[in-house]
Amino acid sequence: MVIGIDIGGTSVKIGLVSQDGKVKYRTLFRFRNKKNQDIMINELADYINNWIKENNIKAEAIGIGCPGVINSDLGECCYSGNLKWDNLKVCDCLTKKTGLKSKITNDANAATLAEWHYGQGKGFDNVIMLTLGTGVGGGLILNNQLFEGNYGMGSEIGHMTLKINGDKCSCGRKGCFEAYASATAIIKLAKKEMQKNRETKLWEACMNDIKNLDGQIIFTTAHNGDAIANKVVDKYIYYLGEGMLSLANIFRPDIIILGGGIALQGEFLVNKLKEYFRKHNFGFPHTPEVDIKTSILDNNSGIIGAACLWFNN
Amino acid sequence: MVIGIDIGGTSVKIGLVSQDGKVKYRTLFRFRNKKNQDIMINELADYINNWIKENNIKAEAIGIGCPGVINSDLGECCYSGNLKWDNLKVCDCLTKKTGLKSKITNDANAATLAEWHYGQGKGFDNVIMLTLGTGVGGGLILNNQLFEGNYGMGSEIGHMTLKINGDKCSCGRKGCFEAYASATAIIKLAKKEMQKNRETKLWEACMNDIKNLDGQIIFTTAHNGDAIANKVVDKYIYYLGEGMLSLANIFRPDIIILGGGIALQGEFLVNKLKEYFRKHNFGFPHTPEVDIKTSILDNNSGIIGAACLWFNN
Repeated sequence: MVIGIDIGGTSVKIGLVSQDGKVKYRTLFRFRNKKNQDIMINELADYINNWIKENNIKAEAIGIGCPGVINSDLGECCYSGNLKWDNLKVCDCLTKKTGLKSKITNDANAATLAEWHYGQGKGFDNVIMLTLGTGVGGGLILNNQLFEGNYGMGSEIGHMTLKINGDKCSCGRKGCFEAYASATAIIKLAKKEMQKNRETKLWEACMNDIKNLDGQIIFTTAHNGDAIANKVVDKYIYYLGEGMLSLANIFRPDIIILGGGIALQGEFLVNKLKEYFRKHNFGFPHTPEVDIKTSILDNNSGIIGAACLWFNN
Repeated sequence: MVIGIDIGGTSVKIGLVSQDGKVKYRTLFRFRNKKNQDIMINELADYINNWIKENNIKAEAIGIGCPGVINSDLGECCYSGNLKWDNLKVCDCLTKKTGLKSKITNDANAATLAEWHYGQGKGFDNVIMLTLGTGVGGGLILNNQLFEGNYGMGSEIGHMTLKINGDKCSCGRKGCFEAYASATAIIKLAKKEMQKNRETKLWEACMNDIKNLDGQIIFTTAHNGDAIANKVVDKYIYYLGEGMLSLANIFRPDIIILGGGIALQGEFLVNKLKEYFRKHNFGFPHTPEVDIKTSILDNNSGIIGAACLWFNN
């Protein structure tokens, strides 16, 4: 049994995870203040320690998923813009308070491990996971293991270049995959079209207030046949498809798994991407077709994936 | 001792390679006709078999580097435009004629293995090799092993997207890294500038015949201070640097090694790329600096790299 910890921007999901991927004693911790990183991590460690004692939890180790740039070799969060953490020794602190050995990885890597152990990636040697949300995160299973790169800082897939000198990205560079394939990006595309086209059903769907617009509304309106919404979706598929094709050429993975808010579109999204791949895959049909699926795990996946850091393949 | 075979478009380099990377009994085979793939591979196998007998060569196995899309699991060349091979069972044929077990990989992978075992990549866990020639080839050492992807068809790094809907690539798609970072690409850039600028020293350097232009001339003329040649080199560095940055974000490798004709520019090239990296690396200084070097191996590297398929790390 391993304690899985899924650190988010304002709260932390915690649970006890068994080798078969089941979660028990689930709990939630909220950061009280976000001004001092040492107070934040110490309060979290105290909370976990109390939770262990109160529930008489017998765990062998702790696995942590954390947003930002992580040095998994040193057990540190080097940098997280969201948490405002800077070279924070997360593993050291948790181990000191609980007496349990700890491992940490990027939150997208944790989601990838969960999907590989218990979800759509099960049984494959080479898996790419993309989380399409506010940004684009990603994780890589290569040659049957999590690939973390030098010092465990690897696979910032969202920041590969898709269009040199293109749209500005949250990271400060231009033209990153994230700037075109995130939920934020499709909403931006749709808003632009809405402002030019008063007749699109997108207005009605968001109750004439453009602030209500989200990915779900765009896809549903497209699915219902609205021309402008379909134009937006097609453009988004083009960007996402091209980025995925780029990854397919670099990795020839068995499967690309999509998670995050956009992935809730399921078959509608997957079918469009598969069609894009069939048309544009380099060397196809000489190269193997890459499967595309959406994640099937629920919102325990962050906890489970973090615990997977201690599970064998 | 392993026989290393480096298959090129018109000829094949062959040698006996020892575990310490030394080559003996080096020989060259030329394809007599390129019309029938079965005749081609059988003639090559016969040649190797005779060479083994004549020199009384004691080898344990054969390693092959071959251009094109290779299925290393099946030992086949699925497709090579250059050789006009289509699903050719290369390993089977060589094994049948010589009695030696065979392994095959892509020629860029072989170059990468050589550089990792005996060159600039020695001792690193995560290495990216880029060959900048007519096209852009590439190989990946990840987590201390060659990464070949699903069915051994991986790492077509030259065909990751650098500019969506950009310049046409040899593969039929648009905007691939290869279309911007190959020797072919910098020559194309320079020719465009030469036609607009009669005063550039590039004209003199290629004896007023644009057909003489090559990468070496462009870099030398830039090095000597010609403004137009420097403009071309800077634009090329921008494309190459951006593609390498994209790879650095995906992989956080220890080192990126440059091979192929362009890499002969050595320090002049490397210093410009390092400067580009320092200015534009995502998350830097939070992320580790990626080293950049040019290959140090001679033209035996294809033979040696092919033999490396049988050597332990």
